[in-house]
Amino acid sequence: MVTRPVLIGVDWGTTSARAYQVADDGSVIASRTSERGIQRLGTVAFGDALAELLGDWASLPLHRMACGMIGSRQGWVEAPYVDAPTSLRALAGRLAVTPDGALTVVPGVLARDASGVPDVMRGEETEVFGALDAPQRSGLYVLPGTHSKWVHVEQGAIAEFCTFMTGEMYAVMLAHSILGRLATDGAGDADAAFARGVARGVGAGTITHDLFSARTLALTGELAGDDVREYLSGMMIGREVRSGRIWAQGAGHDASEVTIVGADDLARRYALAFAAAGVRATRAAAGTAARGLLRIAQAAGMVG
Amino acid sequence: MVTRPVLIGVDWGTTSARAYQVADDGSVIASRTSERGIQRLGTVAFGDALAELLGDWASLPLHRMACGMIGSRQGWVEAPYVDAPTSLRALAGRLAVTPDGALTVVPGVLARDASGVPDVMRGEETEVFGALDAPQRSGLYVLPGTHSKWVHVEQGAIAEFCTFMTGEMYAVMLAHSILGRLATDGAGDADAAFARGVARGVGAGTITHDLFSARTLALTGELAGDDVREYLSGMMIGREVRSGRIWAQGAGHDASEVTIVGADDLARRYALAFAAAGVRATRAAAGTAARGLLRIAQAAGMVG
Repeated sequence: MVTRPVLIGVDWGTTSARAYQVADDGSVIASRTSERGIQRLGTVAFGDALAELLGDWASLPLHRMACGMIGSRQGWVEAPYVDAPTSLRALAGRLAVTPDGALTVVPGVLARDASGVPDVMRGEETEVFGALDAPQRSGLYVLPGTHSKWVHVEQGAIAEFCTFMTGEMYAVMLAHSILGRLATDGAGDADAAFARGVARGVGAGTITHDLFSARTLALTGELAGDDVREYLSGMMIGREVRSGRIWAQGAGHDASEVTIVGADDLARRYALAFAAAGVRATRAAAGTAARGLLRIAQAAGMVG
Repeated sequence: MVTRPVLIGVDWGTTSARAYQVADDGSVIASRTSERGIQRLGTVAFGDALAELLGDWASLPLHRMACGMIGSRQGWVEAPYVDAPTSLRALAGRLAVTPDGALTVVPGVLARDASGVPDVMRGEETEVFGALDAPQRSGLYVLPGTHSKWVHVEQGAIAEFCTFMTGEMYAVMLAHSILGRLATDGAGDADAAFARGVARGVGAGTITHDLFSARTLALTGELAGDDVREYLSGMMIGREVRSGRIWAQGAGHDASEVTIVGADDLARRYALAFAAAGVRATRAAAGTAARGLLRIAQAAGMVG
């Protein structure tokens, strides 16, 4: 028997878009990718970009549920942020629909810290709901990336979260600051350099000072030029691990165990950093975006 | 009576060079500036760049003492780092001279933290010695800049110091990260936005998270686009004030009082941030580089 799709899921971000045929158990039957992220559309209309992404899937008589920046103010239709804490059901009650009805769009989530300063996510909420291995799960979920998110889930709801600009700061400082000057492109001793950076990063320090050690150690010959990148990567991720734990503990949560949402090289790096910090880290099963989109569609009554 | 110069001082950095006629009390009689920093020489030889900078001063029968990146490995002659702690006299014993004898060059200083990681300065050591208002002075000196230095002086010697990449991280993140996207160029309410950033920066937080608030507050309309730059500037400087105090206290020093070395807009910003943090900050008298070069020349016995 062939598994039939029950939903077309779309993860439409800034730089790319991905479409899934999703089965009723949340598994991905097929996927397609496009480079037409919302900032790379040029003069192409959203509808045309979707048609191009879906191809012959466009004729399937299925709902289409999308998450990510497609629901931002710069996207196809704005799906205003839902305030945390928010359950799957609450989120599903705040979906937006494009003017032509082609796509239903999941809203992002907004949380405020103790001093009222907002933090936002858009797309990650769907991945978190897809990552839960039981509907009433509680725990700490870490989504590594350009802007990493640490999300505390309380009985199946997104209770609060915190963003760290780890990936972007790493990339920007390496490319545009003095730190990249002594970095060379050889393979180096990657694992050791990364671990050395992690050890520095998880310690008590301030990143604007610690980063400078990537220069001074290279200047004095104590760090090979080929190892600068991995050292910096380890330091930034290590510092996030430290800061995220402090954030979680400050919010009264257990930070001795986390779930990493992601399956790529970045997730592997985070797993190493968590191990170095003595945090038990497990990985969510792959396919979190598709599974999350299905769960939201189910909560909205669009899929049986 | 006309004051006569006793030394030609040269502050030769990465992006520019400045020459001084220095009187025997350390005051500047005249100064000249060139855009020929060591990374902007192109095919111009160091000797030709110096001749261009000095002009008719080249015929004055005076020693010429230089500090800054001109003494680095990429400079005219390498003046290897002197280990901290270092006195004025010790530094003066380690001067380098260019092959043609045209210029005597002050070495930089290298310090190691408790875990042995090096930190370096080159040029700032001269400013610190020029900033002391008594030969045996002790205290905390802060030199704001691209790479700010916090220097603990103990009985007239540079005991230890710590670099913060405050200025460079601010500039790089504003220009190349998502934080600059919502920043607009109007005047805004500059003082209030700066103060708001300082308040955030001096608090306990992690900069990779706190920086993101420049985006989220602008997204929600709680920070005007025209105020993003000042908010970020205040946050970065505020965080340095916090981190520098923690560094100083960790090293066992009093951090309730500092001397700011610098007289420009940046020094004004630091003074505001120190005031907000309850730190008593005074400014060193202007002309620290020229005065420091004279004191080093005197300690070397080159000037009576």
